[in-house]
Amino acid sequence: MIRLYDYLSSGNAYKVRLLLTQLAIPFERIDVDILAGASRTPAFLAKNLNGRIPVLELEDGRCLSESDAILFYLAEGTPFLPNDRFERAQVLQWMFFEQYSHEPNIATVRFWMHTEMTPERHAQLERKRALGYAALEVMERHLGGSQAARRYFVADRYTIADTALYAYTHVAPEGGFDLERFSAVRSWLERVAAQPGHIPLTLA
Amino acid sequence: MIRLYDYLSSGNAYKVRLLLTQLAIPFERIDVDILAGASRTPAFLAKNLNGRIPVLELEDGRCLSESDAILFYLAEGTPFLPNDRFERAQVLQWMFFEQYSHEPNIATVRFWMHTEMTPERHAQLERKRALGYAALEVMERHLGGSQAARRYFVADRYTIADTALYAYTHVAPEGGFDLERFSAVRSWLERVAAQPGHIPLTLA
Repeated sequence: MIRLYDYLSSGNAYKVRLLLTQLAIPFERIDVDILAGASRTPAFLAKNLNGRIPVLELEDGRCLSESDAILFYLAEGTPFLPNDRFERAQVLQWMFFEQYSHEPNIATVRFWMHTEMTPERHAQLERKRALGYAALEVMERHLGGSQAARRYFVADRYTIADTALYAYTHVAPEGGFDLERFSAVRSWLERVAAQPGHIPLTLA
Repeated sequence: MIRLYDYLSSGNAYKVRLLLTQLAIPFERIDVDILAGASRTPAFLAKNLNGRIPVLELEDGRCLSESDAILFYLAEGTPFLPNDRFERAQVLQWMFFEQYSHEPNIATVRFWMHTEMTPERHAQLERKRALGYAALEVMERHLGGSQAARRYFVADRYTIADTALYAYTHVAPEGGFDLERFSAVRSWLERVAAQPGHIPLTLA
């Protein structure tokens, strides 16, 4: 059975849990206590030299890391990833946007507020806040801009670009981000949450 | 003809110039003076809402942003991207590693040293330096680790994972990173630079 090295409050790990569930692929969850250093042990580094979750371990033992690369692997050949070459590249464009412009700001501030707001972190807060809001503004303009409004990020249907961006956008308020003025983003969040097989980030 | 919205000293733009050249695809370079705000004009934001180069504009006017998504688009169906599904995901794994763990540290410090080391930037320097060296260490272990040494990052041949990682690794010393102890990385840099059709970052 496929194994997912997981951490429950991580949005990056949640992306993979969500897609595996929607694809009805059975998997075993292995909890990795990242706060206790469990992603830095020799055994874990043999699975991902970069010492981060999530890691997907296939039945033959091969491992894949980086949440959005895992999504792409799982989604190939399914309705969650377009067959069209340009649309597939657009999906990747939004996933790289997510990892470069969105996650390091919105997810990081949420993580700080869940754990500890040290003086060093506090000094970076204003800048991360501004960059996080800038990322939300890009999403708002794409979804609700002057062109015809879009229901989803790519190809007018739900793809892994939406999965990737949903993970940390829907919990952005936990990092102190106010989504009030992002009405197109809020409508899109509702559409994503209404997808068949959707599961919440926090397991019951 | 394909257009590349470009900035000469950007490693992210260089990746695309390099692959277009190796694929023998003719393209027109459009210089965007990012330091003068040219990537934030309404005309440019219509091509990339996130206001960043590189942007690839196809002949029909469609635009694609995010350097590694552009590489993937251009490389599909060529020897620069494997056909095997798992290997393709490994290429993406290393490209997401590049954008999340490598570029924000190594490329950013280089950019600061090329432009201005403000007090705010200086305060982040030590942390960026440590994270940049950690990324180089991951590369060194992957290429030269206890398993059989690897010639390239994925599938034992030159792919866009190498293109993506080469861009800012080979100019890391411009950001004050010393590559001396990364011997496997240095050998790999030489192999990448010896590829057919290779061009340097700085145009003559």
